[in-house]
Amino acid sequence: MRAPHSELPAITADVLERIREKRPRVHCITNAVAQNFTANMLLAAGAVPSMTIAQKEVRAFAARADAVLINLGTFDAERQKASLAAIAVANKQGIPWVLDPVFIDRSKPRAVFAKALLAKRPRAVRLNAGEFVALSGGKTQENINDAALVKFAKARRTVVGLTGQQDFVRDGERLATIANGDPLMARVTAMGCVASALVGAALAVEPDAWKAVAAALIAVGVAGEIAAARSRGPGSFAMEVLDAVYALDRGTVMAKARVS
Amino acid sequence: MRAPHSELPAITADVLERIREKRPRVHCITNAVAQNFTANMLLAAGAVPSMTIAQKEVRAFAARADAVLINLGTFDAERQKASLAAIAVANKQGIPWVLDPVFIDRSKPRAVFAKALLAKRPRAVRLNAGEFVALSGGKTQENINDAALVKFAKARRTVVGLTGQQDFVRDGERLATIANGDPLMARVTAMGCVASALVGAALAVEPDAWKAVAAALIAVGVAGEIAAARSRGPGSFAMEVLDAVYALDRGTVMAKARVS
Amino acid sequence: MRAPHSELPAITADVLERIREKRPRVHCITNAVAQNFTANMLLAAGAVPSMTIAQKEVRAFAARADAVLINLGTFDAERQKASLAAIAVANKQGIPWVLDPVFIDRSKPRAVFAKALLAKRPRAVRLNAGEFVALSGGKTQENINDAALVKFAKARRTVVGLTGQQDFVRDGERLATIANGDPLMARVTAMGCVASALVGAALAVEPDAWKAVAAALIAVGVAGEIAAARSRGPGSFAMEVLDAVYALDRGTVMAKARVS
Repeated sequence: MRAPHSELPAITADVLERIREKRPRVHCITNAVAQNFTANMLLAAGAVPSMTIAQKEVRAFAARADAVLINLGTFDAERQKASLAAIAVANKQGIPWVLDPVFIDRSKPRAVFAKALLAKRPRAVRLNAGEFVALSGGKTQENINDAALVKFAKARRTVVGLTGQQDFVRDGERLATIANGDPLMARVTAMGCVASALVGAALAVEPDAWKAVAAALIAVGVAGEIAAARSRGPGSFAMEVLDAVYALDRGTVMAKARVS
Repeated sequence: MRAPHSELPAITADVLERIREKRPRVHCITNAVAQNFTANMLLAAGAVPSMTIAQKEVRAFAARADAVLINLGTFDAERQKASLAAIAVANKQGIPWVLDPVFIDRSKPRAVFAKALLAKRPRAVRLNAGEFVALSGGKTQENINDAALVKFAKARRTVVGLTGQQDFVRDGERLATIANGDPLMARVTAMGCVASALVGAALAVEPDAWKAVAAALIAVGVAGEIAAARSRGPGSFAMEVLDAVYALDRGTVMAKARVS
Repeated sequence: MRAPHSELPAITADVLERIREKRPRVHCITNAVAQNFTANMLLAAGAVPSMTIAQKEVRAFAARADAVLINLGTFDAERQKASLAAIAVANKQGIPWVLDPVFIDRSKPRAVFAKALLAKRPRAVRLNAGEFVALSGGKTQENINDAALVKFAKARRTVVGLTGQQDFVRDGERLATIANGDPLMARVTAMGCVASALVGAALAVEPDAWKAVAAALIAVGVAGEIAAARSRGPGSFAMEVLDAVYALDRGTVMAKARVS
């Protein structure tokens, strides 16, 4: 297996351009803490967010979306129903959706719900190591290796975007390893949530889900590095990372992407 | 009909000064994405926001408010009930309220609800072209012209604040056209929502609702231009626009307002 | 009674260091407006926030937390139930919790609920003068003096952190008066809420609750001054105060704390 890493920076730049041109609608069922930052990140990238979770209208919003984000960070009954409704519409119409199983390693009921959603075939899953262990039935984070990722991706027929110090993007055939990013990203709430939202925007314009996930995570990582260089701390970082995604151009992506 | 445009910049400066002096309370029933930015915008302008939607207390908050904002961006049962309760109190006590029918062009149930609220006589309605079409029963955005606005304003006995590339402020007699603003305003979530909140603050200190709406939209537009000139992208813009509203003085408004 | 003021700046620096080292988990049941800013403030300080209010999981989150924040700023049935559940777990396990009775002076039902929670023995209460009057059954804010504070602290066996132009930290024996801060802090929504969250983080690493409350309020006040000096208005202030808390070091605290 050869990772086609050399193409990914150019693919990332392509995906960013397509998002800006096509302005895909991304319907987000996401948590209360992340909603504002998520909407602003999608707008910064050129996408058009919507956020309703109301039963009366979530199907209509999902049906007209180009991608759907399901984020479990607020685990109330209304959002659970909204998630199921949006996924049903998305699957029926072939609209890609991405699952972000926030904090399922800290809540049994969330983990149970996340597994039920996983069976409905998300195009991609964006999570961290602890969440991957909870979702895959693994034992400890130390056990996560490429064999575990490929097994999961094949069994679930999805793409895994595992983020951390390095990011790993895995489908049944291909692995990309991304070394971009900055420690300040862990000091801003909902940074993973907005990365998942960008995965949604990328899925809306790139049919190869593995490429879409890699492009979104490369973009976030490169933007994170640019933002960190301009920041005094996490407050300015949260602002700068929106500006960095907004301005991210092909030359910068090609120069800064560290993917193998 | 002559638009008394030459007075509006001075009126805008007056309204801003009165908000800072009187510190009006604006009770906001608004959507989850916009709540934080809305509270911060009202505080930046000198007003005092409150945000509760709980049935047990929304009447008490509305009764002591100087203006009420009804924003339909989160369309849940609790907010619908809170909106009806707050409007009943406001109408009984003569407290001005402004309607922001967010995204009713994308959701039938919201449009139905917005029309029911419109019948309860908001002092002003702040919306975009798509929302105006849905609320007025028009066919397409291309059909919106001054005749459509004046007909709506007369029939509904309200003031329309239609925002877009240009803003139009219409009552049965008068039209103001505002050419301020910046494209970055469309890249920050809830920018229209915070404009509606400032309309509420202006209604609290200016009994002529047409002047109040014009003043609020001129202030937002001028502040948006100042913020854009200081911004690298939408992240810094969202911060700068709060600073710009906070610091907006008579001289700047007089120099920069472009209203006819 | 002698206030041991001379020790408090060093204690503040110690507490900040311990938060960064131990990374305490602070489970927050807080209002919709404050959630994002609260999570970001805790992350900036080095703590690890969680925010769920779902009945199915709030006990599990509280049980694994090092401190709990109960903020009444959104007064819905779900949050009331979540508060009671989290407090029951915290009290059973000896986890410290802090009460922030937001706006109880403007809502009878909230005041009733706050008093019921007060009977459950929060380790600390962070509030402003109007809220103190409502919680203590006083008549007017002018009547608040040290006798009122000490009576309350003794009767309730808790620590009061009363914030305003000056902050007062009171238990049955000791009083600290903090003169740090900046008027811009009143122009950013949820500034009191994030101070209460930092009280929670401090309680997690400092068993003497009086010292913990003083340390948190000194840190917020000093950070507020640093942020104000770098800000053009409340928009930039909200960003800068996160950066200032993130970077706050012993030398700065020792030089700038004004406590007696």
